[in-house]
Amino acid sequence: MVKISASIMCGNSLKYGEELKRLEEANVDMIHFDMMDGSYVPNIAMGIYLLEDMKKATEIPFDVHMAVWEPSQYYPTMAKAGADYLSVHLEAVKHIHRDIQSIRENGMKPGVVINPATHHKELKYIIKDIEMVTVMTVNPGFAGQKFIYSQLEKIAAIKEMADQFNPELLISVDGNINSGTIPDCVKSGANVLVAGTSSIFKGDDADYKALVQEMKDSFK
Amino acid sequence: MVKISASIMCGNSLKYGEELKRLEEANVDMIHFDMMDGSYVPNIAMGIYLLEDMKKATEIPFDVHMAVWEPSQYYPTMAKAGADYLSVHLEAVKHIHRDIQSIRENGMKPGVVINPATHHKELKYIIKDIEMVTVMTVNPGFAGQKFIYSQLEKIAAIKEMADQFNPELLISVDGNINSGTIPDCVKSGANVLVAGTSSIFKGDDADYKALVQEMKDSFK
Amino acid sequence: MVKISASIMCGNSLKYGEELKRLEEANVDMIHFDMMDGSYVPNIAMGIYLLEDMKKATEIPFDVHMAVWEPSQYYPTMAKAGADYLSVHLEAVKHIHRDIQSIRENGMKPGVVINPATHHKELKYIIKDIEMVTVMTVNPGFAGQKFIYSQLEKIAAIKEMADQFNPELLISVDGNINSGTIPDCVKSGANVLVAGTSSIFKGDDADYKALVQEMKDSFK
Amino acid sequence: MVKISASIMCGNSLKYGEELKRLEEANVDMIHFDMMDGSYVPNIAMGIYLLEDMKKATEIPFDVHMAVWEPSQYYPTMAKAGADYLSVHLEAVKHIHRDIQSIRENGMKPGVVINPATHHKELKYIIKDIEMVTVMTVNPGFAGQKFIYSQLEKIAAIKEMADQFNPELLISVDGNINSGTIPDCVKSGANVLVAGTSSIFKGDDADYKALVQEMKDSFK
Amino acid sequence: MVKISASIMCGNSLKYGEELKRLEEANVDMIHFDMMDGSYVPNIAMGIYLLEDMKKATEIPFDVHMAVWEPSQYYPTMAKAGADYLSVHLEAVKHIHRDIQSIRENGMKPGVVINPATHHKELKYIIKDIEMVTVMTVNPGFAGQKFIYSQLEKIAAIKEMADQFNPELLISVDGNINSGTIPDCVKSGANVLVAGTSSIFKGDDADYKALVQEMKDSFK
Amino acid sequence: MVKISASIMCGNSLKYGEELKRLEEANVDMIHFDMMDGSYVPNIAMGIYLLEDMKKATEIPFDVHMAVWEPSQYYPTMAKAGADYLSVHLEAVKHIHRDIQSIRENGMKPGVVINPATHHKELKYIIKDIEMVTVMTVNPGFAGQKFIYSQLEKIAAIKEMADQFNPELLISVDGNINSGTIPDCVKSGANVLVAGTSSIFKGDDADYKALVQEMKDSFK
Repeated sequence: MVKISASIMCGNSLKYGEELKRLEEANVDMIHFDMMDGSYVPNIAMGIYLLEDMKKATEIPFDVHMAVWEPSQYYPTMAKAGADYLSVHLEAVKHIHRDIQSIRENGMKPGVVINPATHHKELKYIIKDIEMVTVMTVNPGFAGQKFIYSQLEKIAAIKEMADQFNPELLISVDGNINSGTIPDCVKSGANVLVAGTSSIFKGDDADYKALVQEMKDSFK
Repeated sequence: MVKISASIMCGNSLKYGEELKRLEEANVDMIHFDMMDGSYVPNIAMGIYLLEDMKKATEIPFDVHMAVWEPSQYYPTMAKAGADYLSVHLEAVKHIHRDIQSIRENGMKPGVVINPATHHKELKYIIKDIEMVTVMTVNPGFAGQKFIYSQLEKIAAIKEMADQFNPELLISVDGNINSGTIPDCVKSGANVLVAGTSSIFKGDDADYKALVQEMKDSFK
Repeated sequence: MVKISASIMCGNSLKYGEELKRLEEANVDMIHFDMMDGSYVPNIAMGIYLLEDMKKATEIPFDVHMAVWEPSQYYPTMAKAGADYLSVHLEAVKHIHRDIQSIRENGMKPGVVINPATHHKELKYIIKDIEMVTVMTVNPGFAGQKFIYSQLEKIAAIKEMADQFNPELLISVDGNINSGTIPDCVKSGANVLVAGTSSIFKGDDADYKALVQEMKDSFK
Repeated sequence: MVKISASIMCGNSLKYGEELKRLEEANVDMIHFDMMDGSYVPNIAMGIYLLEDMKKATEIPFDVHMAVWEPSQYYPTMAKAGADYLSVHLEAVKHIHRDIQSIRENGMKPGVVINPATHHKELKYIIKDIEMVTVMTVNPGFAGQKFIYSQLEKIAAIKEMADQFNPELLISVDGNINSGTIPDCVKSGANVLVAGTSSIFKGDDADYKALVQEMKDSFK
Repeated sequence: MVKISASIMCGNSLKYGEELKRLEEANVDMIHFDMMDGSYVPNIAMGIYLLEDMKKATEIPFDVHMAVWEPSQYYPTMAKAGADYLSVHLEAVKHIHRDIQSIRENGMKPGVVINPATHHKELKYIIKDIEMVTVMTVNPGFAGQKFIYSQLEKIAAIKEMADQFNPELLISVDGNINSGTIPDCVKSGANVLVAGTSSIFKGDDADYKALVQEMKDSFK
Repeated sequence: MVKISASIMCGNSLKYGEELKRLEEANVDMIHFDMMDGSYVPNIAMGIYLLEDMKKATEIPFDVHMAVWEPSQYYPTMAKAGADYLSVHLEAVKHIHRDIQSIRENGMKPGVVINPATHHKELKYIIKDIEMVTVMTVNPGFAGQKFIYSQLEKIAAIKEMADQFNPELLISVDGNINSGTIPDCVKSGANVLVAGTSSIFKGDDADYKALVQEMKDSFK
């Protein structure tokens, strides 16, 4: 029941086509696609054309994370480019309830990402309206940061809210997710694991299938 | 003497490694790398990690065009990632003279991009300090727009300024550059041609070498 | 004890003078006046001069809702133009406590508007200082949207806070308020009903008096 | 050949329907409609719904002046609401050339407004692409300011550019335009006169037809 | 155990050297240094060079309060200038958890300031990571405002959180702190008192030592 | 006829009172007071209270340079604090003509500062309305930068405009002004010299009178 969402930004950007094939063979459940605008987060990454091209090359659903200020102007474009889940930062939009409506009206599944310091209660009046919550277990922007353990309590609190108000809710964790941190995350209630450099993307010779299996074994 | 700068954003993003090899074989002079922040221009494209990966794969110099608001925080990162030329929009920074200094201090060659409506006189007090001017012959953000003919007069005006104050200045044109528009551009004074979907990037089967030759033949 | 605040933006803007007379005859309690800046909300509406002109034409108190980023520079002007209640968005100002002080110092009754996703706890440290809370039951910006039912719980929570800390507090609901939604709102604790296109403003031939009566009858 | 554009913001906002009829009888050529966002200019005025309502009531063309930061998201809405000419501030948009294209693609006639301190040369690379230039002869935001005489030289300079590159260009003047200032404006090259409180809108009893005639007589 | 942090902005700016000596003699525990950017708060005050100069003149630790939008670019500079504690507004940064990390990585002790309307629960996911919380008991920007009594409950709530999760946490109060307000603050849990015009800085002839003693006596 | 404006920011901030006395004895003509907001320029410096205190201590006129985004809200405060000349950046305000009006209406003498890359023609439509132009000969923000020689041509161009349209105009130069750079500046037309660390402020033991004399001698 726990899904693996492979963070393609951590792959080899010179041969994303191959990366997607390797991920298909590894049976990952979703492709996590990080867009960064250089303003909401201190990095610039992964454009719209790239999503378009990738979408044509695989049937794995795309779990897009927009780390972008006020992304609403891009929802029609993102839908057309092929985003399946579209998650935006609660902290980066003025009218998150409207954004959720708009993402859904554009044919995508709305998600919300929350930063390490953001209180889980901020989700109270939207939790029924979304398909996924992403809890950042590092600050967004870069790979290779330390896991923030205080987020486990947040995951558990969201799980409790979800059990009551939205049992189908996907609870994703993003940031240094690997066999060391997965057990606690899953135990706390996470059911989507964003896999990056510390779990799957270990270079061109890595065996993605085995690495995915290792992730899955870690919490059983 | 006229250089070809291939706009890699127009290539197949699933196999950029191969694209770079094809461009090397086609003897392009530079790789034009478009970063877009979704705020200064209405598109998001081409991140920093991608530049890093590409840089390791080719020796062709990178001509980076940051269509980004106030990009100065990224200059050290861009230098490290491998930008050779770094061009920023005159209209997108508060203190363009300082930005030019800072780009140079970070070891890159500073360039300035100007939008279709921007007057060439805006370059007066910086023309000696830069290595490249890029004249946008479409509005920045997308491939596939119409060439704006009024920019020919601007190119000529900049050429005149350059002849007097900075004879080595590269004058680049960006936007629907192909054998139809190249002769006028070169005649007006352009010496760098940004090549996109209408000249080189015509699909996986295109013969880049022949297409580059076609560009070069067009203005002789 | 429940008041009707007629949202004049929904009236016929070619004859606001007549609209005001019809509303006087219909005995509405307040005129709800929506200012929108095109930036905080995606619509532009209802300027300051219009408020000035309306104020001279009626004695009904004005309940002004500024859907405007950082409106504080306008408080003296708004007071002079005739705002009785002045409500600003909690989410649109940096220092809401100071804004409340400033609105009061300018001789108006301060109110706070909160968006559908905003937690009612955000009111904790200001609830004693304000005269009105407006709960948005649609996202601000447009008439004709669907009522958001999760807001009923919020209204009830605010009512509970008000009973304890500010029993005179007006609790207003704004967004698709009509005989279908009024009973739940009033039951939850709302005591001001913002009436728009779905309750009063049904065209030049509508009988405002009867329609207001219908609203009042709906919750008795 | 000189047109009168009546600045409806200066009319009686309680009976705009009547105002429009009086303006029709007075044979004004256009209705000047000022939208202000409270951010680009220090005033908030005249919303989109009002334009919609007015458009249904008259056949006089609307000359809309958006004193609004980055108004591009509203172009489709403005076209639908009924703007005939749509003018935006050169200083308030990032990519004025693109805005002009977009206004035209949305079926409206693009115009550009320039502030008192803005140099006429800023129009060089767009003058062929627009239908109207509005020279602000006061700073935008309020009625009742003093005419800025330095703008006469600017009008003349624009007239010269227009004669050469766009002979059909409308050159409008906005700000304290009346029989005292009109002769100089027309002599300098203005061919659209925005009429406000000092020329037409002198109260409910004013004879608009006579006042318009007075304007026309002043420059003959 | 309760510390006095003297708000040097309230001193005589023509002879800060002497002020620092008088404060040393008065045995204050910290110098509270208020930086204001004119944008996050409506005042401009106290620059970086001043901190540098003061640091060289005294060994009293500096408790710097940055009332500045997105101050992160200044952390290396502030560390070098001599800030011991560096506190930033929770409401003024996008990624407060990252800012806290960055302040610490730059060798300073991170603190967080919260405005009068901000809920204490916003501290939940960062309280273990900081050294100091500053509760604003007036709105930031000016000396001479009234103490906001609702903040006592907030202080008590933070004290409770601190007892459980971070017993060493400094809880500072800032705004009209004097013998009238100190007893309630200390009773509620405050252990750092920011002293300004109403307690210490009573002019060139004031006896700082006696005034500090008066503060200390007030809560015993 | 050439005036010396001493940049007090370069003095010893622990004893500004003494610094002012030393400057009085040195007969400087003005005190140059640099306010920096940390946003328009990458430094924070010199607040409003400091200006107030200084004003009480000397009769030398204050030449205030606001390196601040949109400073207009502070004009009444600055006038009260004691600014004689108030200069703002042409590039940092939306409506420079209005700002100039407003500075004058608040009883101060308006000035405009222009950055190294800004064209002198930007002054065309305001040159008659101001008392001072400050040409930045370094990028604003820091002491200790290299003089930018291209600005000499700009000074000369402004002098020519001034001779024709505003012969009383003060033309100030700011940035590494000392006996090495003064002769060229004065020859080009500068008549106010901002003196900083490289000319006057050489430490507590420096003989300001002699150093001022040295400046004056350098261009005779």
